[in-house]
Amino acid sequence: MPNGVIDLNSDVGEGYGVWRMGDDAALIDIVSSVNIACGFHAGDPLIMSRTVEMAARRGVGVGAHPGTNDRWGFGRRGADGAPTDLATMVAYQVGALRAVAAELGRTVVHVKLHGALSNRAAVDSDLAVAVAATIHAVDADLIWLVPAGSAMAAAGERAGLRVAHEVFADRAYDDDGNLVSRSLPGAVLDDSTVIAERAVRMVVSGGVLTGDGTLLPRQTDSVCVHGDTPGAVEAARAVRTALEHAGITIAPLAAVMG
Amino acid sequence: MPNGVIDLNSDVGEGYGVWRMGDDAALIDIVSSVNIACGFHAGDPLIMSRTVEMAARRGVGVGAHPGTNDRWGFGRRGADGAPTDLATMVAYQVGALRAVAAELGRTVVHVKLHGALSNRAAVDSDLAVAVAATIHAVDADLIWLVPAGSAMAAAGERAGLRVAHEVFADRAYDDDGNLVSRSLPGAVLDDSTVIAERAVRMVVSGGVLTGDGTLLPRQTDSVCVHGDTPGAVEAARAVRTALEHAGITIAPLAAVMG
Amino acid sequence: MPNGVIDLNSDVGEGYGVWRMGDDAALIDIVSSVNIACGFHAGDPLIMSRTVEMAARRGVGVGAHPGTNDRWGFGRRGADGAPTDLATMVAYQVGALRAVAAELGRTVVHVKLHGALSNRAAVDSDLAVAVAATIHAVDADLIWLVPAGSAMAAAGERAGLRVAHEVFADRAYDDDGNLVSRSLPGAVLDDSTVIAERAVRMVVSGGVLTGDGTLLPRQTDSVCVHGDTPGAVEAARAVRTALEHAGITIAPLAAVMG
Amino acid sequence: MPNGVIDLNSDVGEGYGVWRMGDDAALIDIVSSVNIACGFHAGDPLIMSRTVEMAARRGVGVGAHPGTNDRWGFGRRGADGAPTDLATMVAYQVGALRAVAAELGRTVVHVKLHGALSNRAAVDSDLAVAVAATIHAVDADLIWLVPAGSAMAAAGERAGLRVAHEVFADRAYDDDGNLVSRSLPGAVLDDSTVIAERAVRMVVSGGVLTGDGTLLPRQTDSVCVHGDTPGAVEAARAVRTALEHAGITIAPLAAVMG
Repeated sequence: MPNGVIDLNSDVGEGYGVWRMGDDAALIDIVSSVNIACGFHAGDPLIMSRTVEMAARRGVGVGAHPGTNDRWGFGRRGADGAPTDLATMVAYQVGALRAVAAELGRTVVHVKLHGALSNRAAVDSDLAVAVAATIHAVDADLIWLVPAGSAMAAAGERAGLRVAHEVFADRAYDDDGNLVSRSLPGAVLDDSTVIAERAVRMVVSGGVLTGDGTLLPRQTDSVCVHGDTPGAVEAARAVRTALEHAGITIAPLAAVMG
Repeated sequence: MPNGVIDLNSDVGEGYGVWRMGDDAALIDIVSSVNIACGFHAGDPLIMSRTVEMAARRGVGVGAHPGTNDRWGFGRRGADGAPTDLATMVAYQVGALRAVAAELGRTVVHVKLHGALSNRAAVDSDLAVAVAATIHAVDADLIWLVPAGSAMAAAGERAGLRVAHEVFADRAYDDDGNLVSRSLPGAVLDDSTVIAERAVRMVVSGGVLTGDGTLLPRQTDSVCVHGDTPGAVEAARAVRTALEHAGITIAPLAAVMG
Repeated sequence: MPNGVIDLNSDVGEGYGVWRMGDDAALIDIVSSVNIACGFHAGDPLIMSRTVEMAARRGVGVGAHPGTNDRWGFGRRGADGAPTDLATMVAYQVGALRAVAAELGRTVVHVKLHGALSNRAAVDSDLAVAVAATIHAVDADLIWLVPAGSAMAAAGERAGLRVAHEVFADRAYDDDGNLVSRSLPGAVLDDSTVIAERAVRMVVSGGVLTGDGTLLPRQTDSVCVHGDTPGAVEAARAVRTALEHAGITIAPLAAVMG
Repeated sequence: MPNGVIDLNSDVGEGYGVWRMGDDAALIDIVSSVNIACGFHAGDPLIMSRTVEMAARRGVGVGAHPGTNDRWGFGRRGADGAPTDLATMVAYQVGALRAVAAELGRTVVHVKLHGALSNRAAVDSDLAVAVAATIHAVDADLIWLVPAGSAMAAAGERAGLRVAHEVFADRAYDDDGNLVSRSLPGAVLDDSTVIAERAVRMVVSGGVLTGDGTLLPRQTDSVCVHGDTPGAVEAARAVRTALEHAGITIAPLAAVMG
């Protein structure tokens, strides 16, 4: 947390056609940055456009949230191709959102990978390097929002990108500072009070909390919150309130990263 | 044909996944500009990337070829939405190709609509105006390649875009200078010699040839050729040869439009 | 309404992948037959399987609800092909649901077309005849559930199918007994009390109510209710309660049709 | 090879919308059974219908060729779900083809899995058992065409299905009788003469040939040939001719299996 300022980010625009996922309007009132699905794992041009406008009108930073071309599986499959091929799929989606935003006179500030693509790039340096080079080629001013301490962080910095590190207040970390797999018990927390307290501790101390309460130091520029259930929206609101009560300013990534 | 220079354009990159359409390599050796499918009616990020590189390496101008989100129907359906919604779908696709090209250090020069989207925008001023505004917002330097004399030509000029007018050497025109529907007999010509002669007459005289051989004057910046059959590739080659024999220089759109 | 018995039907299973539409569990507690999306406009094999099981376990009749291959547009587009081609798309979807049901030891009882496909077949006899022949070829025991008085009704009877006629309690009819287009004001009713009263009058009298309250006689075997909003589920419940209070027995199509 | 009779099978109908793959007409003149893509990895209702008719009219046996719901990746991805879920996807596709065939008065005789789904079911008994139960539930008369010696063979027999074992004349086998991965050099043979000789040896001796020329005994009911390149069609023709010259009768699976 540089200078007492932190970003709150959430995934939005994850509907398709007539379908919707979560309560985007409620989330956009809570967070300072949004990651907008770009039409592969979810999202379509019309949802993207309406979501960009809804966010930008309230001063919320607009980011691209590219995934694999696996709509049925919501981008939880399909990350097993060549790194440069997957990077080209990222280029496609980031460029698509940039143009949809440009049509509205808006700007895309950051990129955050989704699902299986993010999981692989977090640990596969070849993929992280390929995606970093692609983001830089598409727009060298884009901020790359990555899990704190992942292979993406190192690759992004080497590529000359501004890299924002995010922590998860509602997810358990193992002793190495990696997220516990969603398939394991206790991986996802659901008590708003606990989640809000963890968020404050992580942001104030600058790190992630492991299972036994140890804090592993990590750069901390943004806290990720979710909105796919009513309980998740409530927890996101609790995180924001607790951070503000702790004297922390919440601001979009562009302000946090200077 | 300004200054004895004309562009030859063709649609390419119209495969999907493992599937291919036509002989792109042969066409790229013949034409000076290509319209690359952008992932909706056809195309995907990998095909787009390889096609951009193949074209750019030979000095062929790269254009976006957006269509409706109707892959099964190859973009021949689905153009019945609100004009601004369809324009947003154009923004998405043009932006996607721009980023895929940027990843390779290449630039998208022009936009040409595909299929049902083009057919509607040729006669529906509201749609033509919406698409023109979108292209201008995405990149005001993009050239809009449109059927000579269509509603798109007027809308593009009013929006401040450079507009390139194309004629078809292998398609019949009716007495009003509109293309005869593909579903009617005689709509598509297949004799290479006839097609090449028509191309020269249209380019030299600056207009389109109607059924009775009358020439209706039209701005003529580019000739569209096809490549989806071996015969079509041969006809495209005959068009190029005949134009060169007539002393006409073939050059990419950017050169033709100054 | 033959013998004081009527069917109540609703569309269900209209999600895709991670997305859901409406409250299927609530609806299945109210109706006696369900129309299950078959993977084209909505639905996928897993949703289909779970929906079949949920319905069959409660004694609710299982039907196929085929649409056009237009997932993004939810089957509201794409019905402009050749009648026999569209009929083949119906065969595909009905067969798919039959096998998914067979895997569970369950049976598909009826077919009801969705969206643009239904709208066209209601007035286009060629399409209605083609679909009737297809349903008969796939399984001559299938009941075809059609809008009362549509071209489908006539075609189905000529093809030797059992045809069930449905009326809509929450939709306005014009003076010819056709549904008022959803795009017009007043086309969709939302007052549960009004909807329930209309349902009783239509079922008891055997016909549809036009704008001025006139009853046009129509065969009435089923009442269609909706579940895509909380209000719609409440209205569906009110319809069921009102019908039961009027002494009408609600039973699956197979029981109604004898 | 029971009684001097063998089946020749090939994958067909693997186009989508406007796209085609290989020369189905040529293959159907050569083989005695075809495996028709069912709309997931490839195929659509119209291609399925035309392919069923083309095959059935020439006395070629019609089979379903279900894959994963991964059209972009041609079914080479996406086989990582729960066995029963994947089995339900098989049910969907087999049922779809059965109904498309029924519309034409034709019958589906067999099922053969495609791509990643087949690769996993060949070694994963849970998946093989789930798919066997599904095929049996959909139609207990269906023949399951499986790689000779795979987990599918055992599962199919335990489920009470007729199981046909296939060998590949144009693919290398390792010392355990498993196919060498396509990604390894020498995995796919392309010399027609060699392929034809191997086919005869495998069929006459009843087994597969490993790298050092050893024959591992395997039940041999069908030889798989390919048609995605002109060379492949030529090799398929050479296999048929060589088998006939060796006095072997080529007949559809239903005849081979009795």
